[in-house]
Amino acid sequence: MRETWIVGAASNRYGTLVESAREAATRVALEAIQDAGLEPKAIGHTFVANCFGLTEHQGHLGPLLNNGLGIPDVPSVTVESACSSSSAALHEAFVHVAGGFTDAALVVGVERLGHLDTMAATGYFAYGADYPFETRHGATFPGLYAMLASAYSARYRTTPEMFGAIAVKNHANGARNPNAHFQKEITLRSYLDSPIVASPLRLYDCCPFSDGAAALVVAAREAMAHPVTEPLVVRASVRAGAVTALHDRQDLIGLPSTRLAGERAFRQAKVDPGGVDFLEVHDCFTIAEVLALEDLGFFPRGAAAREALEGTTARDGRLPVNPSGGLKAKGHPVAATGAGQVVEIFEQVNGRAPGRAVPRTETALAHNVGATGGSCSVHIFGRR
Amino acid sequence: MRETWIVGAASNRYGTLVESAREAATRVALEAIQDAGLEPKAIGHTFVANCFGLTEHQGHLGPLLNNGLGIPDVPSVTVESACSSSSAALHEAFVHVAGGFTDAALVVGVERLGHLDTMAATGYFAYGADYPFETRHGATFPGLYAMLASAYSARYRTTPEMFGAIAVKNHANGARNPNAHFQKEITLRSYLDSPIVASPLRLYDCCPFSDGAAALVVAAREAMAHPVTEPLVVRASVRAGAVTALHDRQDLIGLPSTRLAGERAFRQAKVDPGGVDFLEVHDCFTIAEVLALEDLGFFPRGAAAREALEGTTARDGRLPVNPSGGLKAKGHPVAATGAGQVVEIFEQVNGRAPGRAVPRTETALAHNVGATGGSCSVHIFGRR
Repeated sequence: MRETWIVGAASNRYGTLVESAREAATRVALEAIQDAGLEPKAIGHTFVANCFGLTEHQGHLGPLLNNGLGIPDVPSVTVESACSSSSAALHEAFVHVAGGFTDAALVVGVERLGHLDTMAATGYFAYGADYPFETRHGATFPGLYAMLASAYSARYRTTPEMFGAIAVKNHANGARNPNAHFQKEITLRSYLDSPIVASPLRLYDCCPFSDGAAALVVAAREAMAHPVTEPLVVRASVRAGAVTALHDRQDLIGLPSTRLAGERAFRQAKVDPGGVDFLEVHDCFTIAEVLALEDLGFFPRGAAAREALEGTTARDGRLPVNPSGGLKAKGHPVAATGAGQVVEIFEQVNGRAPGRAVPRTETALAHNVGATGGSCSVHIFGRR
Repeated sequence: MRETWIVGAASNRYGTLVESAREAATRVALEAIQDAGLEPKAIGHTFVANCFGLTEHQGHLGPLLNNGLGIPDVPSVTVESACSSSSAALHEAFVHVAGGFTDAALVVGVERLGHLDTMAATGYFAYGADYPFETRHGATFPGLYAMLASAYSARYRTTPEMFGAIAVKNHANGARNPNAHFQKEITLRSYLDSPIVASPLRLYDCCPFSDGAAALVVAAREAMAHPVTEPLVVRASVRAGAVTALHDRQDLIGLPSTRLAGERAFRQAKVDPGGVDFLEVHDCFTIAEVLALEDLGFFPRGAAAREALEGTTARDGRLPVNPSGGLKAKGHPVAATGAGQVVEIFEQVNGRAPGRAVPRTETALAHNVGATGGSCSVHIFGRR
């Protein structure tokens, strides 16, 4: 297996796209390729992540993207794994490059739902759940994650302030990220005053619907004699699955696919949680950040919500979590989210995140969840 | 790179599914795994191909499928490349297995559009084309392939009988395939009497909309000490792209992605067209079979339509093409089609295609096109 690097990265500002998914994808892809100091013709394979192109009447995005880049001959494929689509695309790119099938691959996650109303968008999002057993009966993601939050809070006697601290932290980070959807701080008071969406989840527990695009260039070390950026070395690229429907799970505390992907990723990278300097985790709801940090082994069960309140996971804390602002504040453009997490890690490692720089950037982890954990990807990155 | 085999295969009968995509996918996946003499737990990664799950309100099919198979932990991803989705999924599976990332992978292509009316289905199909420049202006696939047929016929002075011969041949083959959508022979007379859909294409030039599911088990030779089937050895697995929109092409004679993928596949497999015993090609319209056979180098430009009339590509001819019945008669369940072509090759090689057996089965080729050639996959298979 060849050592594999992320050598270029780019993202647009998450929010509401005025351009189509293909235009946004092409723009950020070109930026990422230029960031890597490469020409488009260096790309051997393109992996697009997209869930809802059909709402724009457009599937088969790869050839359109490649044509826009001037490399129409290059093979492409679109990858879908609900909200973990672009980390799944990154995994495919990793396998192609590490396995020696191509020297450089392009990963582009893109999503556009802002042309739909909120109810329609919520409905589309929920296509990642188990339709006949969940969605059809009205259970969309706020409701499903509310069940996870209820189970957790009942067992560990949490307070609303603990979850509020996560929202406040992620908004504070997002306020320092020029590509974040929400660039404003919130207070614990405004969190507590925000309306209930699905009890116990308040509005400020929930990530927004965002449009967005994020791109990564993945290359073999041996093909990059003189990298122009500080590459991320892919130390682990792991995916795992789990039963989709919550009622089929043995337990609602944690996501089994995160536990499995995390264990395998730490083994593959030969590090343990203590060796990770900062991380981006899938905080589609504040409870999701709590579960991720415990499932990955960063805190004992029942402790992660309290740690946020104590500042441990703040940008300048012992373990910075979601310096980008996370899904909560940076935003959640479904199939772009996983790639966008890695863009943040790349920016931090390359010293391109002024105002939100984390203290140590030797080793970082990205955690991306599909739906309520039917799929999970964990990537661990190091330095050369 | 490890030698990689197809060790099990299954398909349902193409037509109109009464069950959901997930149910059909799970059923054929289990059959393919059993066919390989394996337990589901032998599967290390699942690749689903699906384009239009959103019409059933269901994305994220992999975890649902894996849960149905009793292997919820196993990672999965859905792959889309328009009509070449499941050959793209097979390529991903090949890369994972040949590259040593897993010992056995499952490929399941599934599509269900039969719950929609024909106009709606035509609209969805066209999402593989270039929406703002083609589909939006009314150009769906019958019209686009009609342009290719017009250009070809003008240059090579073909007769309707030549294209009719392809339809008659593929229907004759489909009539002998118990899993074909159309199991009836047609005559040249009924072809010529069939209504014009998009001039010069008649109804019998066009493949149907089919629902269907097809599954393959892909495994490393070294993991299959005692295969219970006659495996297909993957000698080449190649994909290529091209400009999607026809108006951006330099030429309308042939599909550039087929030419490129074909050349590379023959080089990878170290065979030439003369060494191929039979093939399944992407005959979404009769003109597509003609272009494929010429682009792949089986006949000189301008000759393939005539060869069908002369019987060369019949089941008992010198070069049997589409013994399954092809997309024309076996049917075209979009994201299942590419895997289904390989199911046919597997059945032929394993002597499980009585009534439509081809004379020689040492080397076979599968050719699967996305849209009007924005993507193309070519696989070449040999025997142990």
